[in-house]
Amino acid sequence: MKRVVVAADLGGTRLRAALVDDEGNVFARRERPTPPKGTEVVELLSTLLGQVASASATAPAAACVTAPGLVDADAGTVLLAPNIEGFRNVHLTRPVAEALRIPVYIENDASAAALGEFRFGAGRGARHVLHATLGTGIGGGLVINGRLYRGARGLAGEIGHIIVDPAGPRCNCGSRGCLEALVSGVAFANRAKRMINNGTSVVLREIVGYTEPTSQHLHQAALAGDRQSEAEIRNGGHMLGLALGSLVNVLNPDIVTLSGGLLQIGDMLLGPAREAMYSLAYGPAAATELKITTLDDDAGLLGAAAVAFERLGEVSRRD
Amino acid sequence: MKRVVVAADLGGTRLRAALVDDEGNVFARRERPTPPKGTEVVELLSTLLGQVASASATAPAAACVTAPGLVDADAGTVLLAPNIEGFRNVHLTRPVAEALRIPVYIENDASAAALGEFRFGAGRGARHVLHATLGTGIGGGLVINGRLYRGARGLAGEIGHIIVDPAGPRCNCGSRGCLEALVSGVAFANRAKRMINNGTSVVLREIVGYTEPTSQHLHQAALAGDRQSEAEIRNGGHMLGLALGSLVNVLNPDIVTLSGGLLQIGDMLLGPAREAMYSLAYGPAAATELKITTLDDDAGLLGAAAVAFERLGEVSRRD
Repeated sequence: MKRVVVAADLGGTRLRAALVDDEGNVFARRERPTPPKGTEVVELLSTLLGQVASASATAPAAACVTAPGLVDADAGTVLLAPNIEGFRNVHLTRPVAEALRIPVYIENDASAAALGEFRFGAGRGARHVLHATLGTGIGGGLVINGRLYRGARGLAGEIGHIIVDPAGPRCNCGSRGCLEALVSGVAFANRAKRMINNGTSVVLREIVGYTEPTSQHLHQAALAGDRQSEAEIRNGGHMLGLALGSLVNVLNPDIVTLSGGLLQIGDMLLGPAREAMYSLAYGPAAATELKITTLDDDAGLLGAAAVAFERLGEVSRRD
Repeated sequence: MKRVVVAADLGGTRLRAALVDDEGNVFARRERPTPPKGTEVVELLSTLLGQVASASATAPAAACVTAPGLVDADAGTVLLAPNIEGFRNVHLTRPVAEALRIPVYIENDASAAALGEFRFGAGRGARHVLHATLGTGIGGGLVINGRLYRGARGLAGEIGHIIVDPAGPRCNCGSRGCLEALVSGVAFANRAKRMINNGTSVVLREIVGYTEPTSQHLHQAALAGDRQSEAEIRNGGHMLGLALGSLVNVLNPDIVTLSGGLLQIGDMLLGPAREAMYSLAYGPAAATELKITTLDDDAGLLGAAAVAFERLGEVSRRD
């Protein structure tokens, strides 16, 4: 009989939960808008995970919740989730475990995504995986020797805050030229805003109209033939490639995997990224593969499930 | 009775060998200039390690040789050592093992230095160590979960070739703005050369005279009150700090350790490095320690010895 776990992916806008078996099959999905308050989030998580768990013929062995931001996996606490209001130092695993009566784990979403790709996705068969999530922000995770690597304080993989261009734009973190400030949903939206304010792109201005500029607008303008918009996206891809190439030289993974909404831009972003990464890769690091996720919309849930299975494996090894 | 190994540190100019016990005590040192030819290097290595081994009352359990450049530790081969002429695809462990009749291991010098700091030096008590060697070039090594991390193809830790400033000077590797092109013995010598050619520093020109400019000249000029020379060194320190801070965010080590000749510059280099690293460290990564080596001149030998002891541990665990 296959083992099952319950998994939840807590995002800034959506909360998703499902039952996942150890081959990565996903059942009994639930999805709700993320409530505005931290206490409501914990309540809804318990409810959804409970519903999902009861849909299983066999009792789930564990649950795992992934969250954006800084997570203390050992303490079971979300230290800081900038995209969820008031979500700071929230103890998440204890109340959920009391409701479900099974072990509950918590993990940073990008770290979990790395383990998800390793176990179920584009990173299968690799031993060392570097994963990057390219969305509104930039996250990352590391699988080393086949296990999720968390670092000294659970922070490992924060690739959004490596400096790629010291003369680049200011990041939300306060530094200048972080990867996230150069290529991300927010970075591209900011570029689009500036281009409209400077009057450098009529095409972009027309596409955006009276709405708030987004990375999609920038991409649409590029597709409509606006060279400046295309140059911004290509430059972002180049900066992404410099960051990935640098990390490939430091970490020498078997594979680099990518996921996230920004991948919808496709080759206009990934072409320059691939080129810059390989031009930088040193010696044998040139053999590093670069692949996009095969898990699509389930990447978050399968990441959470992969963490639950790994944690269960640790417990059974200890016995 | 203490276990002993024989260790050799093969550098671009000097070849050093010694007996090392498992507490890091160093005995029976030998030192010779590195011969100009690869075959002579292998011969001298066998001779010196043999002499050192015979100085021990108990038979050494293993030998380890560290070399600069790309090393295939599993194959026992130096793939490429740019600072030793004709040293390319040299099989090193087999001939030495035949001479000594004990297991012989080989490792990249900076990777070995990381394990040396972890086992005997500034990184003792840590679980995850990032080590940087600041010399003529820039090297690095990673200890993860208390073990040397080599990556998929033994390349892990090549921090000299991460991009810190895409608008920076061209590196020997062909890329632009690598850490090694911004702060290293070679980078500072190149800056000094350019400053003299541009006539921007009279003080520096006088200090250098008719010799070839070096990083030491740049430091001397700075100490003599030349602001431009001091600014170059401080900027190099700042770039080093950006690189270390970026790596701290990705790797979240317990400690960052530093070794190498460039440390002789002291606070003029390390002050700005420390400041930039901590201003960048994200959330809990601000707790990462930054320490300089406690192993001094023996760092290379103790790194090699640490690798030999780790390899012996792997063998005994497998039995």
